[in-house]
Amino acid sequence: MCDCIALLTDFGMADPYAGVVKGVLLSVNPGLKLIDITHEIGPQDVHQAAFVLGESYNFMPPGTIFLAVVDPGVGTSRKGIILEAGGYTFVAPDNGLLTLPMLFEKDWCCVEIRNSDYFLKPVSSTFHARDVFAPVAAYLAAGKALESFGPSVSDPVRLEFPRPKEMDGKIRGEVIYVDRFGNLITNIPRELLERAGGQIVRIKGTSLPFVVTYSDVEPGRAAALVGSSNLLEIAVNQGRAVDLLNAAIGETVDIIPLTSGYL
Amino acid sequence: MCDCIALLTDFGMADPYAGVVKGVLLSVNPGLKLIDITHEIGPQDVHQAAFVLGESYNFMPPGTIFLAVVDPGVGTSRKGIILEAGGYTFVAPDNGLLTLPMLFEKDWCCVEIRNSDYFLKPVSSTFHARDVFAPVAAYLAAGKALESFGPSVSDPVRLEFPRPKEMDGKIRGEVIYVDRFGNLITNIPRELLERAGGQIVRIKGTSLPFVVTYSDVEPGRAAALVGSSNLLEIAVNQGRAVDLLNAAIGETVDIIPLTSGYL
Amino acid sequence: MCDCIALLTDFGMADPYAGVVKGVLLSVNPGLKLIDITHEIGPQDVHQAAFVLGESYNFMPPGTIFLAVVDPGVGTSRKGIILEAGGYTFVAPDNGLLTLPMLFEKDWCCVEIRNSDYFLKPVSSTFHARDVFAPVAAYLAAGKALESFGPSVSDPVRLEFPRPKEMDGKIRGEVIYVDRFGNLITNIPRELLERAGGQIVRIKGTSLPFVVTYSDVEPGRAAALVGSSNLLEIAVNQGRAVDLLNAAIGETVDIIPLTSGYL
Repeated sequence: MCDCIALLTDFGMADPYAGVVKGVLLSVNPGLKLIDITHEIGPQDVHQAAFVLGESYNFMPPGTIFLAVVDPGVGTSRKGIILEAGGYTFVAPDNGLLTLPMLFEKDWCCVEIRNSDYFLKPVSSTFHARDVFAPVAAYLAAGKALESFGPSVSDPVRLEFPRPKEMDGKIRGEVIYVDRFGNLITNIPRELLERAGGQIVRIKGTSLPFVVTYSDVEPGRAAALVGSSNLLEIAVNQGRAVDLLNAAIGETVDIIPLTSGYL
Repeated sequence: MCDCIALLTDFGMADPYAGVVKGVLLSVNPGLKLIDITHEIGPQDVHQAAFVLGESYNFMPPGTIFLAVVDPGVGTSRKGIILEAGGYTFVAPDNGLLTLPMLFEKDWCCVEIRNSDYFLKPVSSTFHARDVFAPVAAYLAAGKALESFGPSVSDPVRLEFPRPKEMDGKIRGEVIYVDRFGNLITNIPRELLERAGGQIVRIKGTSLPFVVTYSDVEPGRAAALVGSSNLLEIAVNQGRAVDLLNAAIGETVDIIPLTSGYL
Repeated sequence: MCDCIALLTDFGMADPYAGVVKGVLLSVNPGLKLIDITHEIGPQDVHQAAFVLGESYNFMPPGTIFLAVVDPGVGTSRKGIILEAGGYTFVAPDNGLLTLPMLFEKDWCCVEIRNSDYFLKPVSSTFHARDVFAPVAAYLAAGKALESFGPSVSDPVRLEFPRPKEMDGKIRGEVIYVDRFGNLITNIPRELLERAGGQIVRIKGTSLPFVVTYSDVEPGRAAALVGSSNLLEIAVNQGRAVDLLNAAIGETVDIIPLTSGYL
């Protein structure tokens, strides 16, 4: 039995929504420890939430239960689900938010949340994080078996994430996340880069050197490096790549062999 | 004895003020569990704080102690008070912040915070959350009796909240809160709507359908629904009502019977 | 052994970085209590972080371990250090972030973080808060002796903070921090003001009265007072001094004796 609940939502920190969810969790199960991953996912941005969850879940204590709610379909017939994968348990709407644990972990099992015994009543039609997902997570943490919440689900919704393409020795990927520091995080993983050997990175017509850490270039200069998520990242030492390069999510990033003669 | 303290302030998350308050709480009483309701109340906006507290307090674990500080009169002769109501205890400046628990709960009792034995010394004239309210809340959580903090108060300050008006079968209310999603939350409660039967909602010259959940209209379209606080709310599916309707707090909202022929 | 970890970073609350650090802390040591001082230090602003840490650390429970990470030199040869001072323990990059505890506390001792047994592997070159500082803090909290982390450091990096100057009975200081309320916090301590006796405050050509608390002037008017950090602060009652006075960090503030005849 785990007593950690990790929260990931698009509720922000200004409204009382995240606090209310925590109140419900601790009302059901006063012994819980709560970890905020973030509440600042872009409103209704399930893709961003799925990415952030995928990059962070395996740093949480073994057995952590995730309450992950970005839920544009709240109150409709979209299912609520519980996923067990990698020694963790995830509680979320069935909208693709849990795509990455299903992709990264070899085995998983999933049930639909149906048993309303575990809900806060009356269930509203706009705030299932409070009325459905939070009490379910708290009862899971208290040791209720997965099967007691509902029937098995074999095909939870999964989102497409853009994958990098390899052709003619080049790799073409794209920017998939921009962080507080203005770093551009791409979908190109370390393994792909290592296979490719020496190379140069091009984004928006600019060629960037590969470095190990931010300070390997002068302050204000851009460079490419493998970031802490093992993804290629474009950063500016003590500056903001997103502004300097005027790039955004979706921007194309090319990896070109040093030997290609194309600069 | 409860070990939950719920915090609601206008301190924001950037300055260390909320963290310092937590440090003081845990210095006095290391066993406390802290729940942030929000620290992003508009600076000095006691009305907003009172509303948010009123809508969220009863989702906290029974016995929770609330440390609610939005305090434009800090350092003046305004009192500090402790209110017991509905099985909860509230610690706050006496400026109306606790209006709604007094309105919603049948019985309450209130004392003034006078006994400086429980204060952090020296008491500053600008940060009573740290020097007065936090240690008082922590000693309350440790089991100190209400009476030990000061004399009874029979008339704590109460704020006026605008109430919806009924006339000729119509209801006129107003927008009282705008959330992160741009939803416009009004002061019109579910009970009033249900009594009125079928109806249409008008705001800024626009007529909106009543629906059950956000997705009952097409993405980008506005609708009215009963939100998770049991108040009428105007929302845009996957969009921002506050922007689409160019509305703000105080905007008039009319509920008109479907049979009135006035559209 | 203390179970409180206080966090101070420039990670913001939107990205999962602060949450991941908390996951690592609780993975190593599930009994920890975590206090967020702030994660909203300006990106790479070590000076601001050092000031905020210096003003807040002694409100944390005795024995608290601080995880303070603002780290523009991450991945370079800059050291990581552990400082013991004033009954607290601080874990940080060696870039001056711990200047004020060293200045304020009579005795301190410091070691370099070298023993990689306590690191999360593989150690990234861009996220030492996760891979180095968090596990080190968690092992410290679990009782590991300071000496087990690395050799003694006698000369940790210290930052210069601008000091107020006294001349001809006048004091000249400057604004060093602006808070959420728009208050301008200066580097002029209470002791200096008290020594100077009756005086007037000048900033940007405006003379301000000395008061005790915000409400001692009319709403919308500026005044000077000793704030909760025992530093001279310039504030506007129910308004924002930073906007009204159009001032910023670095702005000169003069304290002039009332008897000087210069207004």
